[in-house]
Amino acid sequence: MSATLATDLESAATAVHHLGEVIGTVAFAASGALTAVRRNLDIVGMVVLASATALGGGIIRDVMIGQFPPTAFTNLTFLIAATVTALIIFVKHPARILTGWSLEFTDAVGLGLFCVTGTVVAYDGGLGAPTAALLGVTTGIGGGVVRDVLSGEVPTVLRPDSLYAIPATVGAVATAILLNFGLYNAWVGLICAAVTTSVRLLAVRYGWRGPLPHYVRRQRPGE
Amino acid sequence: MSATLATDLESAATAVHHLGEVIGTVAFAASGALTAVRRNLDIVGMVVLASATALGGGIIRDVMIGQFPPTAFTNLTFLIAATVTALIIFVKHPARILTGWSLEFTDAVGLGLFCVTGTVVAYDGGLGAPTAALLGVTTGIGGGVVRDVLSGEVPTVLRPDSLYAIPATVGAVATAILLNFGLYNAWVGLICAAVTTSVRLLAVRYGWRGPLPHYVRRQRPGE
Amino acid sequence: MSATLATDLESAATAVHHLGEVIGTVAFAASGALTAVRRNLDIVGMVVLASATALGGGIIRDVMIGQFPPTAFTNLTFLIAATVTALIIFVKHPARILTGWSLEFTDAVGLGLFCVTGTVVAYDGGLGAPTAALLGVTTGIGGGVVRDVLSGEVPTVLRPDSLYAIPATVGAVATAILLNFGLYNAWVGLICAAVTTSVRLLAVRYGWRGPLPHYVRRQRPGE
Repeated sequence: MSATLATDLESAATAVHHLGEVIGTVAFAASGALTAVRRNLDIVGMVVLASATALGGGIIRDVMIGQFPPTAFTNLTFLIAATVTALIIFVKHPARILTGWSLEFTDAVGLGLFCVTGTVVAYDGGLGAPTAALLGVTTGIGGGVVRDVLSGEVPTVLRPDSLYAIPATVGAVATAILLNFGLYNAWVGLICAAVTTSVRLLAVRYGWRGPLPHYVRRQRPGE
Repeated sequence: MSATLATDLESAATAVHHLGEVIGTVAFAASGALTAVRRNLDIVGMVVLASATALGGGIIRDVMIGQFPPTAFTNLTFLIAATVTALIIFVKHPARILTGWSLEFTDAVGLGLFCVTGTVVAYDGGLGAPTAALLGVTTGIGGGVVRDVLSGEVPTVLRPDSLYAIPATVGAVATAILLNFGLYNAWVGLICAAVTTSVRLLAVRYGWRGPLPHYVRRQRPGE
Repeated sequence: MSATLATDLESAATAVHHLGEVIGTVAFAASGALTAVRRNLDIVGMVVLASATALGGGIIRDVMIGQFPPTAFTNLTFLIAATVTALIIFVKHPARILTGWSLEFTDAVGLGLFCVTGTVVAYDGGLGAPTAALLGVTTGIGGGVVRDVLSGEVPTVLRPDSLYAIPATVGAVATAILLNFGLYNAWVGLICAAVTTSVRLLAVRYGWRGPLPHYVRRQRPGE
């Protein structure tokens, strides 16, 4: 392979990585803005909740790896992307996106992309594969936890309706293994993200859930 | 101007900056203690919630700019100021301060001062003006978010009753612009804080609020 | 004393310190898992809430002292201990541990151990005794705050039912004073932790609580 081609591929991979981060930001911002609409918040609340959801995971990740100030404060691309997403949803949303799958879908897309990019950023920062995977999971679920806590709900990652932490862990661990064995590139990363998103959406669609503890199982009929 | 006068003015400005931080701390501590009283907490809960509210914004700011340990842990002035404020409200409060404007007023004073001092601290730490403004907003709204999340309420910054994030952004951005063009000093900063506080209080008084999204507007009559 | 004996005692002290951290982790993980069971969460929610409770205090402490990434992400012992604890509670728990004292007991054990180890870690990191004590309190109460906020409850540290912040402060301040005067060792630390845990449990048992503010006291009969 010529040096030029290698460089081209490398910069393409970097571009794909950044694109993944921006799309993940937009997806989480949309999930925050949709949550805001459902909670009857105004346009300012929509922008704030969208930004907190979109930037929250990355800020937590950057704090954990010791990157100050976090990228979300220095590269305003992410804040602008989140704000524009919230404004678009404010101005023009078909009524149907407020019901049904839109929230689960945008959240799942953000989850998939951030689990992968979070793992990659942590690994590139010199951390071992297990630590990187753990930080990837934290990045992926962090935005949703911020969104749900701020809007007064039990975080999705805790709810027993359908699996959430499992797909996140699968995506981050797969990414960390690939990185560890030198098999990772941005294209493979996209596949990891797509698998994470798909598993999460299948869990919602088919009601895949973890087993309940014995005590709760016995209680269920009597509730 | 003589060197002595310049030095005098500079140390006066530093004193004003510190005074602003202490008054902001007292104001936010009062808002936390009043919230605690309304939630039927005891004296310990009042001190803890007052301290978390008063120190929360500054701790978040210091973590974001990489200042460890945060000033709130090393300079105990702030913790003592918050504790004394809570104790005074515990011992002797006229019943009327528990109703009406006291909570909005103290919160607005803290918001104004912390938006400005947060921006200044971040800018002095070497960050660019946009990043400093963003951190100023985060510092200003951070304490209130901590207070509201801990006491189980939707944060004021998200509520659609009256504008909160807009005055905070105005104050922080004005401060960042003045800093960027070398026009900032502590006296001008006080004006920025006063404007922020006033806009927030006017928003409460006159019910200034952001527009609601279309879907919610249509739903309102049917609620 | 021979050099060998001194070294033996020192490594025994280090072992006791680490044991204390692991037992505190297991205790807080159990309190998180029990909270999850009471909230009808599934096995995944139990593991997530147990881990967040067990690791939360230490992560907050490490961020405050500038230790990146926090130990919880690099030394997986703590995550594994928390996960195993949650799984054991999932698989085999007598119904009685879900009622009565189990939650208060495990939480009090974690509180006592983390107040002491948190203070020691901060002091060993070069911070002064008052700052170390404050960080010890933060470490001790941090895990419970994370657990309660995530599961949608007002944090135990704020509730007026029984004293919580006072025993935590006593344990951390005692540890900091002993450290400051060179009188601390791991065995004395165990006593500090045991005292903290005991005071907390006595407060629960005998309903020791802080005084309520005047206004609330007057209101009580009319509620």
